[in-house]
Amino acid sequence: MRIEELKTPAFLIDLPKLKANVQMMKARAQKNNVNLRPHVKTHKTAEIAKMQTAPEAPGITVSTLAEARFYQKSGFKDISYAFPITANKLSEAAELSASLNVFNILLDQPQTLSAVEEYGREHGIKFKVFLKVDCGYHRAGVDPSKPASVQLARQLAASDYIDFRGILTHAGHSYHCSNPAEIVEVARQERDVMAQFAEQLQNGGIACDTVSVGSTPTAMHAPDWQGVTEIRPGNYVFFDKFQADIGSCRPEQVAATVLTTVAAHYPAHNQMLIDAGALALSKDLGADHLGDEIVFGAVLNHPRLRLFSICQEHGLITSNDPIAFEKHPVGSLLQIIPNHSCLTAALFPKYHVVEEDQVVDEWTPMRGW
Amino acid sequence: MRIEELKTPAFLIDLPKLKANVQMMKARAQKNNVNLRPHVKTHKTAEIAKMQTAPEAPGITVSTLAEARFYQKSGFKDISYAFPITANKLSEAAELSASLNVFNILLDQPQTLSAVEEYGREHGIKFKVFLKVDCGYHRAGVDPSKPASVQLARQLAASDYIDFRGILTHAGHSYHCSNPAEIVEVARQERDVMAQFAEQLQNGGIACDTVSVGSTPTAMHAPDWQGVTEIRPGNYVFFDKFQADIGSCRPEQVAATVLTTVAAHYPAHNQMLIDAGALALSKDLGADHLGDEIVFGAVLNHPRLRLFSICQEHGLITSNDPIAFEKHPVGSLLQIIPNHSCLTAALFPKYHVVEEDQVVDEWTPMRGW
Repeated sequence: MRIEELKTPAFLIDLPKLKANVQMMKARAQKNNVNLRPHVKTHKTAEIAKMQTAPEAPGITVSTLAEARFYQKSGFKDISYAFPITANKLSEAAELSASLNVFNILLDQPQTLSAVEEYGREHGIKFKVFLKVDCGYHRAGVDPSKPASVQLARQLAASDYIDFRGILTHAGHSYHCSNPAEIVEVARQERDVMAQFAEQLQNGGIACDTVSVGSTPTAMHAPDWQGVTEIRPGNYVFFDKFQADIGSCRPEQVAATVLTTVAAHYPAHNQMLIDAGALALSKDLGADHLGDEIVFGAVLNHPRLRLFSICQEHGLITSNDPIAFEKHPVGSLLQIIPNHSCLTAALFPKYHVVEEDQVVDEWTPMRGW
Repeated sequence: MRIEELKTPAFLIDLPKLKANVQMMKARAQKNNVNLRPHVKTHKTAEIAKMQTAPEAPGITVSTLAEARFYQKSGFKDISYAFPITANKLSEAAELSASLNVFNILLDQPQTLSAVEEYGREHGIKFKVFLKVDCGYHRAGVDPSKPASVQLARQLAASDYIDFRGILTHAGHSYHCSNPAEIVEVARQERDVMAQFAEQLQNGGIACDTVSVGSTPTAMHAPDWQGVTEIRPGNYVFFDKFQADIGSCRPEQVAATVLTTVAAHYPAHNQMLIDAGALALSKDLGADHLGDEIVFGAVLNHPRLRLFSICQEHGLITSNDPIAFEKHPVGSLLQIIPNHSCLTAALFPKYHVVEEDQVVDEWTPMRGW
């Protein structure tokens, strides 16, 4: 089937670009001697996760327990669930622990440690647990400069009901950067905070096998990973306008677009209507800290067109110049580069895999919680 | 099952509130002598659409052709597809026309009229078509003050391949209002523009059976619908923070919330982490034109808590006061009132229907295009 025969809106994955992105990150991890445990929340498919992993590096990272169940059923055996566990999720986590070779959970609260220990004691289970560390993003994790954080690590390591796996962070503040030089600084901070905290723990007699860091921007620009053992980037399989805007990737590396139909011309308002709206793109504002005019995606090959407004199924394109409507006839197709491919991909029940103008495959992601 | 036994995040529908909203709009339509053709894109379930319709008013409005197919299979026989049709969607539209008693499409482009006529001529089909009118929102539709718009209506009415059904608009600019008085003004404009255009067409010998208007805010506040024959509100089944903020509804009418677990406390940043992020809420900013601080939803029963930041699965709550963490233990539940219930509902593979603290039903919405 050719791309132009698809129903719109459709989520397109450029297979050669996807493969190049996957290989690029494998090569970066190998060269820097760190384990790559990709975050699969970006795509939630078995197909891409298989491409991202290898017999010597079989581990993946997930954002929900439903993802963990999906990947367990898809044959994956080594999974980290990278959201702080809570008591109401422990029975699900226990089932996953029983059915996988490795199922890592994480926590950063003393109350949660108590809940995990209590569950473990009652059910005869030893959970594999990471301590979540805040390396400067301030979204989640313990402050490594605080004695209470060392104390929590010590309790984890000493618990009879816990197999303490190490420390884990996500440098999400790399998304606040404006250019590669700034990303390098965040990557250094992520590395240094984690390496120093791991050293502090080890000097205090707390074994800390794994030192895990994340984020696609820092994974792209880290000068090295001295003291780090594992990286967990996710977005790099597709990249998106956000990553290109902050210099995390080059625009031509973006592997995901949304195919859409031009539905109407409104010359009086210098506008065109497309059939990709908030349900096909998400309302993510992208790198809005850069101060550019807000758009809800970029129009591939037409950088002067601005997707300035989206409703549920409607998208409106304008331009600072008069739109050359004759180049975009009613019924013709456009491709939108999403602001944030993780959120955009999550809106589609299936993905169309393309090479040049041909649809070569169709992949079904998992959904829900 | 009780609400607290649900996995989080979960989409909860308060059944008594839903029923009250459904009855309220039916009563408004009946009292004002207009046909209610609800827009079902807000929920995309058969269950709620059945509640919204009646033997004497069986029609619904959909936003995608996939919705139309889903509702056709669910036994609905009278459907309007309220997005401008394009040539690449005509074969799907033809199949729907053949399998339904009524399948209305709409257009506002002369090129699309030509495409519809050509398809009709080739396949021996007579499509039922509305002319989409811009009543002031400037998203889509013809300008009723322009002679070309009357000319397009005349061509529709005269075509051998088209059954011209009338005119249709959506006063989406009601969402830019700040209070009920402003909404009343938009409702008057919507009514007057459409009634006058219909009269103009009829005076010109163009029969215009249906005069259809939309939007929940205008449906809630229109003083009357003189000259209008049909209303197509959708959001009113659930309402949301946006509708409450602009005065379209009262806050206690909102029937949809997202159940979430408090996953962590960060007193140093006066923050709490919840497991409802952008994939559970959408990144809709709500009524951001009102100038209030941006939040991604309201915390039910805790108006001082502010959900100020969301990532894919993470939500961060703060407050202008010190958070009373002891009232929200780690592992406890909160309910988030979504900014925009249509976009939030669309993220969930199933809805949990609740009465007080009991889950009484589970509904499965349709997804995709």
